[in-house]
Amino acid sequence: MYLNETTIEKNTVFEGRIVTVRSDKARLDDGTVVGRELVIHPGGVSVVPLTDEGEVIMVRQFRYAFMCPLLEIPAGKLEPGEDPEKAVLRELSEETGAACRELISLGVCYPSVAYLTEKIHLYLARGLDFGTAHPDEGEFLDVERIPLEKAVDMVLNGEIPDAKTQIALLKTWHLVTEKAAR
Amino acid sequence: MYLNETTIEKNTVFEGRIVTVRSDKARLDDGTVVGRELVIHPGGVSVVPLTDEGEVIMVRQFRYAFMCPLLEIPAGKLEPGEDPEKAVLRELSEETGAACRELISLGVCYPSVAYLTEKIHLYLARGLDFGTAHPDEGEFLDVERIPLEKAVDMVLNGEIPDAKTQIALLKTWHLVTEKAAR
Repeated sequence: MYLNETTIEKNTVFEGRIVTVRSDKARLDDGTVVGRELVIHPGGVSVVPLTDEGEVIMVRQFRYAFMCPLLEIPAGKLEPGEDPEKAVLRELSEETGAACRELISLGVCYPSVAYLTEKIHLYLARGLDFGTAHPDEGEFLDVERIPLEKAVDMVLNGEIPDAKTQIALLKTWHLVTEKAAR
Repeated sequence: MYLNETTIEKNTVFEGRIVTVRSDKARLDDGTVVGRELVIHPGGVSVVPLTDEGEVIMVRQFRYAFMCPLLEIPAGKLEPGEDPEKAVLRELSEETGAACRELISLGVCYPSVAYLTEKIHLYLARGLDFGTAHPDEGEFLDVERIPLEKAVDMVLNGEIPDAKTQIALLKTWHLVTEKAAR
């Protein structure tokens, strides 16, 4: 049986630009007191930009946490209180230069529930209009077009390890193939 | 164009039981120096235990980061240097009481690539033999059996927000339906 937990002590141990870290104490319903590490993140948005030709616009950028470039769908951090739809349109435009006529929610994912508060809002963008990409200063990336079916194969065979990209591509595949079957 | 990055300064700002946090400085290929926050985690394992009747054994437990219980597949943290297959068999046994005759890799996912080093190894377990669940001390959870198709629907309609569970269930669905189609 799971037990509810109540915070009895909050200790902020690091406040950074991206994450805040706490080392709390919590009381379980049975009275036990336990330590709880918490990484607090404002959350993010991520989008599968799907062209009329069935290609996904993806970005490749260096990821310091893995010391190598990774292939991902466009994404960004939410500003505190920011509307996710507004944020995702901004990131789509900044990273790929595209606007879209249709934005479909693919739900939310919680990347690492044991200690991380981050929630990522996922979207599918269709009806793309291309302008010119204008990445954030200090954001360097390559833009690549990959057919959806190939991108899904890359998820299934392990070539795309990023979790948000895996989820958003697999959900897009369900959506597109379900519609095709009707 | 993406730019490679080289660490020029490492600063450990928190060392916890689960995560270590660093606030580093890195030099980009163009000479720019940037700050990089890094949450270091030893990685984890997670498994879809699938019964001969097509049900997934899932666990519901309170998650302090969201202050509510969440429905997930069984999972656990890797000990430093531990073999993921060994770890996943241990977690499967601890949380559900099951052993398995077949363990299939569903690949790896990186939950939050912008700042988190965690990698989660995903598996599908079949040919389950049930003993008695013996959770870790201080680990309280409910075990539930959910038909695979229903669990996949719950991922698609937003009832299961946990990222590793979403990925592992969607990949299992691909595997099972692909095999069925042959």
